[in-house]
Amino acid sequence: MPESRDIDVLVSEVGPRDGLQSIKSIMPTAAKKAWIAAEAAAGVREIEVGSFVPATLLPQMADAAEVVSYARTLPGLTVLALVPNFRGAETAIRAGAHKIALPLSASETHSKANLRKTHDEVLAEVRRIAAHIRELPEAERPGFEGNVSTAFGCTLEGPVPEGKVVELARRLVEAGVDEVGLSDTTGYANPAQLRRLIRLVRAEIGHDRLSGIHLHNTRGLGLANALAALDEGITTLDSSLGGLGGCPYAPGASGNIVTEDLVFMLDSMGLRTGIDLAKLLAVRRILIEALPGEEMYGFTPDAGLPKGYAAGGWGVPAGT
Amino acid sequence: MPESRDIDVLVSEVGPRDGLQSIKSIMPTAAKKAWIAAEAAAGVREIEVGSFVPATLLPQMADAAEVVSYARTLPGLTVLALVPNFRGAETAIRAGAHKIALPLSASETHSKANLRKTHDEVLAEVRRIAAHIRELPEAERPGFEGNVSTAFGCTLEGPVPEGKVVELARRLVEAGVDEVGLSDTTGYANPAQLRRLIRLVRAEIGHDRLSGIHLHNTRGLGLANALAALDEGITTLDSSLGGLGGCPYAPGASGNIVTEDLVFMLDSMGLRTGIDLAKLLAVRRILIEALPGEEMYGFTPDAGLPKGYAAGGWGVPAGT
Repeated sequence: MPESRDIDVLVSEVGPRDGLQSIKSIMPTAAKKAWIAAEAAAGVREIEVGSFVPATLLPQMADAAEVVSYARTLPGLTVLALVPNFRGAETAIRAGAHKIALPLSASETHSKANLRKTHDEVLAEVRRIAAHIRELPEAERPGFEGNVSTAFGCTLEGPVPEGKVVELARRLVEAGVDEVGLSDTTGYANPAQLRRLIRLVRAEIGHDRLSGIHLHNTRGLGLANALAALDEGITTLDSSLGGLGGCPYAPGASGNIVTEDLVFMLDSMGLRTGIDLAKLLAVRRILIEALPGEEMYGFTPDAGLPKGYAAGGWGVPAGT
Repeated sequence: MPESRDIDVLVSEVGPRDGLQSIKSIMPTAAKKAWIAAEAAAGVREIEVGSFVPATLLPQMADAAEVVSYARTLPGLTVLALVPNFRGAETAIRAGAHKIALPLSASETHSKANLRKTHDEVLAEVRRIAAHIRELPEAERPGFEGNVSTAFGCTLEGPVPEGKVVELARRLVEAGVDEVGLSDTTGYANPAQLRRLIRLVRAEIGHDRLSGIHLHNTRGLGLANALAALDEGITTLDSSLGGLGGCPYAPGASGNIVTEDLVFMLDSMGLRTGIDLAKLLAVRRILIEALPGEEMYGFTPDAGLPKGYAAGGWGVPAGT
C-alpha cells in the first residue's frame, strides 16, 4: 500500500536486490549508493536495497548492511531488505531496514533449491522472525512481508496449483507476517491467471493483506500483468531499473518489469507515482556506467517520451 | 470481428505490410509467400499481405498484386491489403483482396507527409472507393475498412485531440467504409487513453463499427494496450511476427506488437485464436533467414513456453 495518500501506485524498485543478485558483475558499493540516492531523488518511495544472505552464496550482496544504513539516511525512502531466514532477518533489522521481505516458494522443489528448506521449515523461520519483531520496542519494529514466489508456475515443477498458493498465503499470515505479496519469479503469469489468483488470495486472507505484486517480463507480458493487477486494485508494483533481474535458480527467468516503462505507463495513464519520469530516465546512466556489458531492457529509454508529453497524463481530452 | 465463432480473438498479421514497408531490406516474393503460407498453416486467419502504393515510393511492396493472388489460394485466410487511394484500391480489388484498408491520419501534418493529402482529400478518395465497390457484383465486393492512424498522438504534431479522432471515425463511416479501426502508429497510446477512445468512438459510430486496434510496442506498452482493448470487447488485434514494423514517416515509431508474444498472452489466458503456438514460433525462422541483419523483437521466442505448458490456458485450477 502507498505509504501516503498523495500517490496512487507505489513503485517498489527491486533492482539493487533482484537485479544485482542475478547478474555476474558485482556492483561497487559506491555505485549502489549513487543508484539508490538518484532513484530516491527522482521520487521513488521504496527500494529493496539488498538481500541478507551469506556472502559466500551471493557475493553481490556482501555489503547489504552498509547499503541499508546508507539508504536509511535518504529522506522519504522506505528501505526494504530481502531475508531468507531468521539469521538474515536479525542482521537486516539491526542494520535498520524499515521493512523485511521473506520469500516462500509455492514450488517446494524451488524452495529447496533456493532456500534449501521445505515449506514447513520456511514457515518455522517466519514464526521465529515474527516473535523476534514482537519483542522489539515498538519504534524499532520493521514491517514484515511474506512473498509467495513461483506463484504462477515454476521452471522446475511446471504448473503450480492455485490452491497451494492460497494455502501458503494463509499460512504466512498465521505465522505472523503483516502482508503477503505474490511473485511471478519465472515470468509465467498471464493477466487472467493473475486476476483470478489475486481474488482467491484476498478471499482467503483479506483484501488489505495482499500488498504487492512482483512481475517479470520474461515473455513480454509484464506490463499487461501490471495493468491486470492495477485493475484488481493492487497498489504496489515491484520493478527494476533497466529490467535487471531474475532468479539464479530459475534458468531463463530473467528480467523484472522495467521501472522506466512501468512509470511511463502509470504516468501517462494519469496515475500518480510521485516519480519524476525525466529524472528517473537519467538514473539509467549510472547503471550503464557501473555495469559495463550487462544487458539493459526497456523501450521508453530508447524511444524517448512522446512529442509534447507533459507529466501526469497523456491523451486526456482538453477541457476535462 | 472474428470471421467465425470458433475463435475469441482474431489476430491480424500485418508484418508482410507494416513490417516490410519500414525496413531497408526488400524481401523476395518467394520468401513473402513462404511466410504467409506458414502463418496461415499455423492457423492465422487474416494477413495484411501488402500495400498498393507506387513501387517508386515503396519498392518493398512492388509485388503486392502477385502476393495477394497467391494468398487467395490459401484456404481459410482473409487476404487484406492496404490502399492509400482510389487507384491503389482498384488495383488491390482487381488482384483479389478480400478486404482493403485505407489509413486516414488524425494528424493532418502526418496525413500530408504520409499520403500527401488533407483530410478532405482522403475522405474524397474513400467516397470514390465506396462507390466503386457498390458497382461491383455482390460476390466480388471486398470488405472496406478505414483506419484512423496517429489516433493516440503524432510524432510531428504531438498530442491529437480525441474529438478529432471521433470526428474522423464518423466521417469515414459517412464516406462509406464498413468498419473503422484505430491505429497507434507512433506507439504513444496508454491503456487508459485507449479505453476512453474506444468508448468515445463507439458512442459516435456504433459498437460494431469499431473493428480492430493496431498497436505498436514502441514504449513497451503494446500488450498492456492489447489487454485494455480486449477488456473493452475489441476482438481484432493487429500484430507483426518478430515485431517488425513502424512508419517510415514517423521516426522512432518502430515495432508493431509481436505476434508471438500476443498469441502467447491470448492462449495462456484461455482465449481461442485458432493459432497453433508452436507452429507460429517456428515461422520466425523464415523471417530470420530471409531478412539477415534485421532486428527481431519478442520475448516468448527467446524464453520458450513455460515448463508443462499446454495450449488453451495456463494456471487454470485443476477441476474447474
